[in-house]
Amino acid sequence: MKIITTINEMRAALAQVRTQGKKISFVPTMGNLHEGHLDLIRRAHQLGDCVVASIFVNQMQFGPSEDYTSYPHTPDADQQKLSAENVDYCFMPSAAEMYPPTGITTHTEVFVPAVSTILCGASRPGHFKWVATVVAKLLNIVQPDVAIFGEKDFQQLTVIRSMVTDLCMPIKIVGVPTTRGAGGLALSSRNGYLTPSELAIAPTLYKTLTQTKQQLVAGERDFAELENQAKQSLAAVGFVPDYVSIRCQDDLSEPSTSDTKLVILAAAKLGKARLIDNLQVTL
Amino acid sequence: MKIITTINEMRAALAQVRTQGKKISFVPTMGNLHEGHLDLIRRAHQLGDCVVASIFVNQMQFGPSEDYTSYPHTPDADQQKLSAENVDYCFMPSAAEMYPPTGITTHTEVFVPAVSTILCGASRPGHFKWVATVVAKLLNIVQPDVAIFGEKDFQQLTVIRSMVTDLCMPIKIVGVPTTRGAGGLALSSRNGYLTPSELAIAPTLYKTLTQTKQQLVAGERDFAELENQAKQSLAAVGFVPDYVSIRCQDDLSEPSTSDTKLVILAAAKLGKARLIDNLQVTL
Repeated sequence: MKIITTINEMRAALAQVRTQGKKISFVPTMGNLHEGHLDLIRRAHQLGDCVVASIFVNQMQFGPSEDYTSYPHTPDADQQKLSAENVDYCFMPSAAEMYPPTGITTHTEVFVPAVSTILCGASRPGHFKWVATVVAKLLNIVQPDVAIFGEKDFQQLTVIRSMVTDLCMPIKIVGVPTTRGAGGLALSSRNGYLTPSELAIAPTLYKTLTQTKQQLVAGERDFAELENQAKQSLAAVGFVPDYVSIRCQDDLSEPSTSDTKLVILAAAKLGKARLIDNLQVTL
Repeated sequence: MKIITTINEMRAALAQVRTQGKKISFVPTMGNLHEGHLDLIRRAHQLGDCVVASIFVNQMQFGPSEDYTSYPHTPDADQQKLSAENVDYCFMPSAAEMYPPTGITTHTEVFVPAVSTILCGASRPGHFKWVATVVAKLLNIVQPDVAIFGEKDFQQLTVIRSMVTDLCMPIKIVGVPTTRGAGGLALSSRNGYLTPSELAIAPTLYKTLTQTKQQLVAGERDFAELENQAKQSLAAVGFVPDYVSIRCQDDLSEPSTSDTKLVILAAAKLGKARLIDNLQVTL
């Protein structure tokens, strides 16, 4: 695995790869890699001949009161894991490389209006704008044939799919099902913030979504009631729920009772961690 | 010259061109082509082996009270001119091809904050956001090595340069000096809105900028006074000035008296036409 830190080096290396007719697959990450990320890498190998991963913690997408400064930073372990998964290139740019000073002091923004200000976007103003912007930058640097994202960040995946479609980016976006640990807990770097007792409670998030899914499958269509029940279940074990919301899979709009492709999304605080999870339901 | 109307056909044709190792140069236009556009095409031939021009009047960048419905539409004459200039591909997508209906009803926006809301952006809210967005789409469709824009639309060029830099688009942006007609009048499709008597007055815009340039070269540094004098000169012959503004060339910021790379920009209405022009001054 070659580690690359500058945009010019990354482009030069991939220009070579392209002349060999190889298909490039790309997995952007914020590092602190777990099995969920490695599942994305494994899918990338299935979809391309040359696998590029990036590690960049994009400060812009963190709110002023969020966990940027405490976000786990484990570059050595990350490199070992990527190397063991036969990643070809690991792109690890500095903040100055990604946001160099230019004559113009404010940075171009990529904003996907409909899906950026709801759900997690309502609690994290500006978050998805800067996710879309940094992903646009990374996609323009790597110019992959395919880019792979986890379905665990379902709203992020929807934002990126919309951006790529709207801006005619010639890149296939692939979502990979959420990797889960003990009790169904979705793997997340933020699980590292949990105490042992919180870790015991955390799988309730997945269990609650599963119960809501079962109720939908059983024919229940009072979405507001289902969402309230789920929030109460979370609160009962110690979560501070932000939202539980049943939405349409394709565009995250509010469903009618006749919609059949749904997704149940939830965000809730547990101790210092803000956990998110979702389950797709196709009726 | 091959005329192409769909994104897929455009991509397929250019994929072929790329495998031949040819350099692609691209000139996006809104049609109604004049010698100014053809100068861009000539520059494109100098900079690339395969020249692509596009004709697309982007309704999104016109305000509700602006001239979208009356904007001149001359596709047959445009095709003849491009063919005579040995353009390889003319991309003429429909509005439905560029803005297809998707599940998500609002379109992704590309916004370059610092340079989009000043000068023409102050009079045309949203204009540069949709210019940046449609240019991003066109650049992602054509994926040229180099894209060529007229310096006549100096602020637009600044917006596009900033976008391409910020979003790490692997494309060289080249500006071409303004093509001028009788009396120095900058060629523009909107000159077609002028009556014969207005056409006689119109070159005063260029003459006024030239006078301001001479005063700057002579050492005058009271920018506000120079701007006021220029607006008065324009008003005296029948223009309704929107602004005359002396700015820094690189980022359109307001200059200090020690800045040496300046540009004088002006916008003024004459009859039905809103004319713009600019002159660069390097002291």
